Amino acid sequence: MALFVQKYGGTSVGTVERIEMVADKVKRFRDEGHDLVVVVSAMSGETNRLIGLANAIQETPSPRELDVLVSTGEQVTIALLCMALEKRGVSARSYTGSQVKILTDSAHTKARIQDIEVEGMRRDLAAGRVVVVAGFQGVDDHGNITTLGRGGSDTTGVALAAALKADECQIYTDVDGVYTTDPRVVEDATRLDKITFEEMLEMASLGSKVLQIRSVEFAGKYKVPLRVLHSFQDGPGTLITIEDEDTVEKPVISGIAFNRDEAKLTVMGVPDIPGVASRILGPISRANIEVDMIVQNIADDRTTDFTFTVHRNDFVKAQDILRQVCTELGAREVLGDNKIAKVSIVGVGMRSHAGVASKMFDALAQDNINIQMISTSEIKVSVVIAEKYLELAVRGLHSAFELDKADTVSE
Amino acid sequence: MALFVQKYGGTSVGTVERIEMVADKVKRFRDEGHDLVVVVSAMSGETNRLIGLANAIQETPSPRELDVLVSTGEQVTIALLCMALEKRGVSARSYTGSQVKILTDSAHTKARIQDIEVEGMRRDLAAGRVVVVAGFQGVDDHGNITTLGRGGSDTTGVALAAALKADECQIYTDVDGVYTTDPRVVEDATRLDKITFEEMLEMASLGSKVLQIRSVEFAGKYKVPLRVLHSFQDGPGTLITIEDEDTVEKPVISGIAFNRDEAKLTVMGVPDIPGVASRILGPISRANIEVDMIVQNIADDRTTDFTFTVHRNDFVKAQDILRQVCTELGAREVLGDNKIAKVSIVGVGMRSHAGVASKMFDALAQDNINIQMISTSEIKVSVVIAEKYLELAVRGLHSAFELDKADTVSE
Repeated sequence: MALFVQKYGGTSVGTVERIEMVADKVKRFRDEGHDLVVVVSAMSGETNRLIGLANAIQETPSPRELDVLVSTGEQVTIALLCMALEKRGVSARSYTGSQVKILTDSAHTKARIQDIEVEGMRRDLAAGRVVVVAGFQGVDDHGNITTLGRGGSDTTGVALAAALKADECQIYTDVDGVYTTDPRVVEDATRLDKITFEEMLEMASLGSKVLQIRSVEFAGKYKVPLRVLHSFQDGPGTLITIEDEDTVEKPVISGIAFNRDEAKLTVMGVPDIPGVASRILGPISRANIEVDMIVQNIADDRTTDFTFTVHRNDFVKAQDILRQVCTELGAREVLGDNKIAKVSIVGVGMRSHAGVASKMFDALAQDNINIQMISTSEIKVSVVIAEKYLELAVRGLHSAFELDKADTVSE
Repeated sequence: MALFVQKYGGTSVGTVERIEMVADKVKRFRDEGHDLVVVVSAMSGETNRLIGLANAIQETPSPRELDVLVSTGEQVTIALLCMALEKRGVSARSYTGSQVKILTDSAHTKARIQDIEVEGMRRDLAAGRVVVVAGFQGVDDHGNITTLGRGGSDTTGVALAAALKADECQIYTDVDGVYTTDPRVVEDATRLDKITFEEMLEMASLGSKVLQIRSVEFAGKYKVPLRVLHSFQDGPGTLITIEDEDTVEKPVISGIAFNRDEAKLTVMGVPDIPGVASRILGPISRANIEVDMIVQNIADDRTTDFTFTVHRNDFVKAQDILRQVCTELGAREVLGDNKIAKVSIVGVGMRSHAGVASKMFDALAQDNINIQMISTSEIKVSVVIAEKYLELAVRGLHSAFELDKADTVSE
């Protein structure tokens, strides 16, 4: 008898038939005696339909009115799911973000949750009702409807779980868990039973698009056990949780993430004087270009080479800015490459294991893959390589770290 | 410089293009210096689409959840209209029923307005903003979303006008005013410049479906001048207002209403003893059948004939009930006729003019139309005739009371 917050995404509630399937699932949990708060997204396609209506009027509509508009998407779903539950004899009650209420700041279209009133939900749960909450939305302290930005329903789920001190926040989606790497690249990729918040953050931000990053941060911060499961297939999914210190045997590497969306820029022969990095990156950041990896090498006594990566869409814009900066700094030249890919190995286990990085570099060398950049953190090693070697690299690393052997990743 | 509450119905905001046209219209009023509160319905078809989704799950969904669902329809329109206004440089802000807030009782799907908070709207108006309000919806004092029932956006408009003490509540629709009778039946039907609340109530309830009856009652009660206008054609429309006692010349009859939806039932030879009427109508009302006209004639010393009309859809059901009642009462027989129509002449002028009824009967007699039932009120005379004579009767009366002469109905 536990309290679960369950979140079902847009494809899981994409049709009336699927909403009925979700209701069946929720009923099974109720029949087992669990208390449930269910968070739902808009039916798939609905948010885009609404934004299409707005854009037919204005290219950049008022964010306040955009929130009024798109928040109707989830409101439709909560009502339909409650009807489907009541049809099955399951007592249920729907709440919009305002009704809960999920108090946010006033940053329309990308609001942040500040507080959640739990009294009403607790009363409903005590009365045996399933509480159905519209994801992705809240209300500011002037009563304006706000939204948390795309994918924000995951965040709603985690925030509710934290506020209600739920036993688990279950994110139902169209995959059955988090994998050691993308199964479309490595056939032997295996589902992880368990992964830490930190690992998941590294995996998510590196391209494993299972969960919204903010929701994982949030879950980690409030220590809400988070489970990713398939909406319509039974299975344990992947539990994302705090590091279990009792576990003696821990896999060194949990997974391999990769990203093809980056481009690399290098300023060669930069005078090696203080303040150079900010004179290079300042104009980039003022142009709203986000920088990912940054590497600086000393080339000779008086100059240095400065390399960083940006999203591939910003490549040309960044190159133009750098040419200007290069002249101002008296640097030698600007080099660019947008045919690169980033590959990262992620795992909390590497903290206590020496030689993880060198094992990675060995594996890549065996496949004759040249490493262009290296960046490391406590639980991750990332390399930049030529894009054409991406699949080869991921498969080689997956095998080198024995991720294809399921028993290395079980609890 | 006046304060107008304007209401635009579903067809007037049925597409993005029409919403843009409404925005043009609102901008013109703003440019003339008027303050505006605009009430909108859901885009035409949207409410039915939403109810269709609900019915795909349940035939009779929970009224609470149905309100959560269908109230999204108007919420979409308020956001889109605000965007269209802001695109035109008109400052605007949208409000759902909850946000206003329009406090109602908790009778979901047919709630009644209890109170309206005007402070927020007054602040917006003072700041030069157009206030755009979702029609048809409110909130009960537990924060539950309620709806006023179909057509309830008119009521929202009138209620806001009353609460804000607006100079006029303008109902924009797909006709350019209230006519002396249905122009599809009488080609010479003319638009009324002015009509009283009482006349409009009689006209509306008798089949001139221009305005929702409840909104007219409401407007009359709070003396809110109500004007019916065409959404996309210029013109003065019809002003519905209190009786103007200064007007010396007043037309005897303002219009002719009719209704084909009725059926007539007669219980013949009912013992003429006290309590008979309720023994006949009690079972009818317990079966949720609404009764319109009721006429009782004394047939001979000890028995009476009892006749009433019901909606044609209830004819068979009512007949079955009456057969049972007939046996219990020892009455002679039950007669029924569902090929009837009701025709009414309406006008506050008839209060002070004798002979209006006999003029009506004369006109019908001249066309050889037999009158089956007669019912009168202070400002109306209704007759039931065979349905096949309906058009003939309406045209004859329209001409007899000279309604085709526009000057008789001008102010």
